[in-house]
Amino acid sequence: MSPKFSAALLPKGFQFSATACGLKKSGIDLGLLISEIPASAACVFTTNLVKAAPVLLSQMHLRRTSSGMKAIVVNSGNANCSTGVAGIAAAKRTAVDIAKAIGCREEQALVCSTGVIGVPLPVKRIQDAIPALVRQLDATSDSFKKFTCAIMTTDTFPKWAAANCTIGSKKIRLLGCAKGAGMIHPNMATMLSFIVTDAAVSPVVLRRALRTAVAGTFNAITVDGDTSTNDTLALLANGASGARRIRQGSADYLRFCGALESVCQSLALQIVADGEGANRIVEIEVKGAVSDREADRVARAIGNSPLVKTAIAGGDPNWGRILAAAGRAGAQLDPNLIEIRMCGMLVCRNGCAYPFNERAAHRKLLAKQIPILVDLKLGQGRARIWTCDFTADYVRINASYRS
Amino acid sequence: MSPKFSAALLPKGFQFSATACGLKKSGIDLGLLISEIPASAACVFTTNLVKAAPVLLSQMHLRRTSSGMKAIVVNSGNANCSTGVAGIAAAKRTAVDIAKAIGCREEQALVCSTGVIGVPLPVKRIQDAIPALVRQLDATSDSFKKFTCAIMTTDTFPKWAAANCTIGSKKIRLLGCAKGAGMIHPNMATMLSFIVTDAAVSPVVLRRALRTAVAGTFNAITVDGDTSTNDTLALLANGASGARRIRQGSADYLRFCGALESVCQSLALQIVADGEGANRIVEIEVKGAVSDREADRVARAIGNSPLVKTAIAGGDPNWGRILAAAGRAGAQLDPNLIEIRMCGMLVCRNGCAYPFNERAAHRKLLAKQIPILVDLKLGQGRARIWTCDFTADYVRINASYRS
Repeated sequence: MSPKFSAALLPKGFQFSATACGLKKSGIDLGLLISEIPASAACVFTTNLVKAAPVLLSQMHLRRTSSGMKAIVVNSGNANCSTGVAGIAAAKRTAVDIAKAIGCREEQALVCSTGVIGVPLPVKRIQDAIPALVRQLDATSDSFKKFTCAIMTTDTFPKWAAANCTIGSKKIRLLGCAKGAGMIHPNMATMLSFIVTDAAVSPVVLRRALRTAVAGTFNAITVDGDTSTNDTLALLANGASGARRIRQGSADYLRFCGALESVCQSLALQIVADGEGANRIVEIEVKGAVSDREADRVARAIGNSPLVKTAIAGGDPNWGRILAAAGRAGAQLDPNLIEIRMCGMLVCRNGCAYPFNERAAHRKLLAKQIPILVDLKLGQGRARIWTCDFTADYVRINASYRS
Repeated sequence: MSPKFSAALLPKGFQFSATACGLKKSGIDLGLLISEIPASAACVFTTNLVKAAPVLLSQMHLRRTSSGMKAIVVNSGNANCSTGVAGIAAAKRTAVDIAKAIGCREEQALVCSTGVIGVPLPVKRIQDAIPALVRQLDATSDSFKKFTCAIMTTDTFPKWAAANCTIGSKKIRLLGCAKGAGMIHPNMATMLSFIVTDAAVSPVVLRRALRTAVAGTFNAITVDGDTSTNDTLALLANGASGARRIRQGSADYLRFCGALESVCQSLALQIVADGEGANRIVEIEVKGAVSDREADRVARAIGNSPLVKTAIAGGDPNWGRILAAAGRAGAQLDPNLIEIRMCGMLVCRNGCAYPFNERAAHRKLLAKQIPILVDLKLGQGRARIWTCDFTADYVRINASYRS
């Protein structure tokens, strides 16, 4: 966690705690966050048809509760996915026990899991840990920091982001954390993210704000083209700041959306930067497409190309692979018009090589952030996505994940 | 090349030669095959919108020639792609010189290139090599063997396959070779393949036979999801066997298609086996889908999943990743019905873990061929594709390809 984090960034009325319950071989693997007062909730879940038990349960709780969300309980080390009826029962058991311990109804708790698929969740370990977990709840940076660590799997660093804005005369705060690493793909990959705010927002308005913020951030990143069974992004707003309620379409709403988007953007980029085995962030911007949708297709074809991503890993300005990926994207294009820039250097014009200094280009490509700009020169459509390079370490991590 | 190859496998009336013209740093990189009499030709080209100059030229020649194809000239080491007007001129120059040297019209020659994209083709080197190339033409196994080596790039072994069948009382032969390695994806990736036969078949019937043979073979393999700019599969039939002409829909036709498909199948599997960095072939069969098309979607989602492919590289029976890939394929499915077998072992039933011996499974997964069977239990749709595992060597090869 960045040394710049301080308790002043914590939104009012939220508490955190984390502990080790033995689901991971070592380290903390169970986290809890609660809102002292019931909070409006908005969530985005995986689009995979294979959904983990906690996703199915949380979706149901979100539909059912009319009295606001109180808690989010998260375990790492076991995805509780493809675990059948017993898996659903385990997720429900977790929610029931948390609800009892903090004094709310079970549908006021969301449950999230991440880890290996298809292994029964030893829910007893979670149940046994809940009393201590609840006892340790508090509103300190230290607890928040522990919570961000409890949700990690192959992540190499905890991810968090904060923002604030003024609503009326009151300051409202947003604070989020995320875990990512592998299986990151548009439409929410094995990614868990939790954002809390002390703004006052109705569930309907909160949902709309979240949907807008996600489109150009969490849904614009890809690590390996795989979409997980457990993805959950949950946003809670408890109103504890005392600021006036944010109404749809108001100036307050726009300010709130701006702050929310900056948190989502920061978390999404941290996930890409920590893509399994990744050394560099690649920002792929496509313009000049006949529509935004077609631009997005081209950007994703480039961003998911293992050949492009391995070339970036090697610091190789291999623009031919970018062009080839664009050509198979299924979007309208004329190869003879295409212009490509890597790290600001023009490398391809009218679909042909544009002379550039290979040595200088290679040096530029060793940077941490690699911008790639592809101009199709056909229309006004644009899109931007982020991915990471594809290194031998990705393979090493994933060839032995379970062992 | 397998020691089983003998001159008896060569179809009548074809000659081969190969030489080093200096496009690769070392080794032979220019091959020529000719038919002594004009041959019917059928081709399948890349579907990438970015097409290399030789692809554009060969497509034009195929449309224009009414008098049969005489020659195929192939270089490795340079793709002659994204090389603009000069690239087209270089491909044309090659065809013109070959035509002059062997005595045919330029549109009776097909031109193919494979190698790095975006670097001007030094066509002078090819022109200078043509006299020797033509002088060395002959119908020996040795020349064919050299030809199969001249077309290789990152391939680790030459690929060839032969078949024969009887048409009337005459034996007809088919002989094919291919280069593959990286960028192998449905709809013909950086793959060049040439198949010659001494059967007598009209261009129309030949095209139909090729299209049928390709569907379940070359178009059912994937290495990395990338589709190249240069893919070409060319089939020449010169009738030199003296066998009667094969008519559409006849028993002769079915026999011919069977032999053609066996050649395509063998070449396709050799390409997968030699996928960049690959150690194992993975055969993914999906059944029980609502349609063949949906089965194909699921099979390809699994076959293109880096997480599945890295697990296979590690000998890890991680069926959860297979299930997760199926779930995001965009096909209709019920996770609670799915059954998965790896190497014949039931590992997932009703979408849940089925108890299996991890150690035995790991041992089985170290085999060269890994069959994966996914039964969606919804309908009669089936599909089968082949891919390879995804190793750290793939990254090593592709991070430094140009240097």
